[in-house]
Amino acid sequence: MRISQLAAATGVPVATIKYYRREKLLHDGVLTAATQAHYDDSHVRRLKLIRALIGTAGLSVAATRELLQGLENPPEPGHDLLGLAHRAVTRPAADGVDLAPAQELLGRWGWGEQACDRNSQAALVEALDGLSSAGFELPDGMLDRYARAMRDVAEADVESVPTDSPEAAMRYVVLGTVLVEPVLLAMRRLAQQSASFERFGAATLGQGAGPV
Amino acid sequence: MRISQLAAATGVPVATIKYYRREKLLHDGVLTAATQAHYDDSHVRRLKLIRALIGTAGLSVAATRELLQGLENPPEPGHDLLGLAHRAVTRPAADGVDLAPAQELLGRWGWGEQACDRNSQAALVEALDGLSSAGFELPDGMLDRYARAMRDVAEADVESVPTDSPEAAMRYVVLGTVLVEPVLLAMRRLAQQSASFERFGAATLGQGAGPV
Repeated sequence: MRISQLAAATGVPVATIKYYRREKLLHDGVLTAATQAHYDDSHVRRLKLIRALIGTAGLSVAATRELLQGLENPPEPGHDLLGLAHRAVTRPAADGVDLAPAQELLGRWGWGEQACDRNSQAALVEALDGLSSAGFELPDGMLDRYARAMRDVAEADVESVPTDSPEAAMRYVVLGTVLVEPVLLAMRRLAQQSASFERFGAATLGQGAGPV
Repeated sequence: MRISQLAAATGVPVATIKYYRREKLLHDGVLTAATQAHYDDSHVRRLKLIRALIGTAGLSVAATRELLQGLENPPEPGHDLLGLAHRAVTRPAADGVDLAPAQELLGRWGWGEQACDRNSQAALVEALDGLSSAGFELPDGMLDRYARAMRDVAEADVESVPTDSPEAAMRYVVLGTVLVEPVLLAMRRLAQQSASFERFGAATLGQGAGPV
């Protein structure tokens, strides 16, 4: 198909397709004339994936490029797939960040700090620092309750990784890590509204009168 | 204290403090001379909160302003605190978005769709659309497992809302909604690494050889 047909098939404007091609997110089509290229289903699939990563998951162009390169050259099965996905979506730990608070929690939860990468530990430390900078204190035991729930999520995630091919595993880990996050956060808000409604009753939310 | 001392006390540069004042995020100090104002602890607390909301939680200036106005004029207890917090951090639902997929799930989970606001339902629909646009299919039953875990999180959240004053409830709901999200996501990644390590063994993550 031509670029205009690719745009129609994916809903991505021609100018955006050209931008993704310049940024090396989308592979070139086959040239059929000096100014015309032919695109196929692989471009449709790739464009939908790019839109999901940049649009839905909110990744930068650079992080998206790194992930797509990972998809094209997947590490061996049993290798560092999860690490690659997490590195692309986790900011590098700042120099000199103190990981001790994260390591104490990992020890308390029995999560094995040797299994957990520095950047993700730093992300937890920073997120907890954000709470205390705002003067926000979680009640006793809250962090442990959160940890149990997120462990349930993670067990489900890890059990579901397909093992039939490295490409399938890679794809699942990358997308399952990034794209499921907005699903979980939307679920938390809906569950809060539902739990709050059951506890406090009152009118519907979002119309000026509601629970809490 | 003077503005330079306020900067020293909070780690926020003077130019940034002036910017927050112009944007009406930070209340004025008391003028002690034509070009000098006096600041107090209320400015220190407010600045730390602004940094947490903009820096840690990644809110826009406009969303932060709306939340801070909510803190200054808290709705009556039992009123729409949760809705105010969620509106500030949830994009408005697009016109004509079909909420049926969210409502079917809310019904299946017994979450009571009348308790749940349109924008949060739309956020779930969009997040699920992001998965299917990327051609990513969750295995059977995954969404229900996620829902059970996020319900556990939300029950803990709602039980912890302090009821001693509207200000305290508002503050808890706003910060607990926004600032806890990066904590939960960091926990999920660490729990994935831990669960993956237990299942697949192998070397540490982030060093080129690891689980999955």
